[in-house]
Amino acid sequence: MDKLRPMNTARDRLAELGLVLPTAPVPIAAYIPTRLVPLAADTSLLYVAGQISILEGQVLGGRVPDQVSVEEAREAARVCALNLLAQIEAASSMEAVVAIAQLSGFVNSHPDFDGHPAIVNGASELLVEVLGDAGRHTRTAVGVASLPRGATVEISAVVVVRS
Amino acid sequence: MDKLRPMNTARDRLAELGLVLPTAPVPIAAYIPTRLVPLAADTSLLYVAGQISILEGQVLGGRVPDQVSVEEAREAARVCALNLLAQIEAASSMEAVVAIAQLSGFVNSHPDFDGHPAIVNGASELLVEVLGDAGRHTRTAVGVASLPRGATVEISAVVVVRS
Amino acid sequence: MDKLRPMNTARDRLAELGLVLPTAPVPIAAYIPTRLVPLAADTSLLYVAGQISILEGQVLGGRVPDQVSVEEAREAARVCALNLLAQIEAASSMEAVVAIAQLSGFVNSHPDFDGHPAIVNGASELLVEVLGDAGRHTRTAVGVASLPRGATVEISAVVVVRS
Repeated sequence: MDKLRPMNTARDRLAELGLVLPTAPVPIAAYIPTRLVPLAADTSLLYVAGQISILEGQVLGGRVPDQVSVEEAREAARVCALNLLAQIEAASSMEAVVAIAQLSGFVNSHPDFDGHPAIVNGASELLVEVLGDAGRHTRTAVGVASLPRGATVEISAVVVVRS
Repeated sequence: MDKLRPMNTARDRLAELGLVLPTAPVPIAAYIPTRLVPLAADTSLLYVAGQISILEGQVLGGRVPDQVSVEEAREAARVCALNLLAQIEAASSMEAVVAIAQLSGFVNSHPDFDGHPAIVNGASELLVEVLGDAGRHTRTAVGVASLPRGATVEISAVVVVRS
Repeated sequence: MDKLRPMNTARDRLAELGLVLPTAPVPIAAYIPTRLVPLAADTSLLYVAGQISILEGQVLGGRVPDQVSVEEAREAARVCALNLLAQIEAASSMEAVVAIAQLSGFVNSHPDFDGHPAIVNGASELLVEVLGDAGRHTRTAVGVASLPRGATVEISAVVVVRS
């Protein structure tokens, strides 16, 4: 075994969870998926565009809780996190993540719904499972009237990476 | 009197307003309340998670203006700002604030409501009263369909602190 | 012709598009339009407050698609981008823009609407037309319940500028 190779990479942890990194989704409009802003001390801020709940071209859509269940919405948030990881890997590397500074979670919600935290946890927990302490983050979780392509969840991120 | 101690600290100003800094709310889900990102020149960005309108465990909830009045919602925004200050104090120090870069305000609103600025002012004005010029900030104020635990307001912040 | 003057400035490109930079809108509440945060290497982050769709004091308002059409909303987003450019010019300079890191787009939407990307493109495309590659950005586009003054679109930005 190559001793220089880390034993337990983000990709290893994804595999242990039975997950495969999707292809980084191509923006569905006139913007770019990531922007790298150099800071001091060999780090950069990586801004990642809002990722909707879409997997292999299929949108996980509908409003919580009248059109999709809390559990389905939680799975949609998890898919958003997978797409965030794919964008991080495409622009930099999951191994280069020092910290996730900020996660902004938007949930397609009925006006009476109040359980957004449990849903966005689907994303938060996956990021920590895959990236360890570096994946811990501050976050907002709010209920919005509607989302692009009818998606159930959209999440953007600001990430600190080694550069 | 100790001459080395500043005369008019943020905590003094809170007291003059008859306010007490609450205990920094514990996140109600799988995230952390703050993340510090070092910049150049002895400063850092402090990302603060979305703080809902909750005081001593009681959620100030309901939708503007059909369930709560503009004045009640304004008070809810003020409570969000108190919680932001508590998080800043827990992670760094109110005295270390150089500037608040960004405030993101989400108001639980009826679709016909259009007075969000007056509501989020409850938070904006308190931050300037307590932190002085350092508390001035850019901001967004939008009306959302619903918020965690039925809260009336949720506000997150990006703060520049001396490190 | 003055050889020291760049041939094709942002202001030139605006003129070619038949557009005039509006006066930077004065915040309608207790906040400031921009905050500059110095980074390393002669650059700063410029945070720009949420700009609603307002032109010469007239709000472009209403909800998509039942009160205003997709095309009208797209024009509203374009006006938000013009206001962002006006704020950038007032605080720094359009010529100083190195990159737009993040655009946060909020569209006043009916719950059944799912075409937000096409609307926010009105802003994204103008920023690239005027600023070139520096105007390319990551973004979120979400549908909200309501916006200040009934505006159809509100957009905030985080911009990297030479300082």
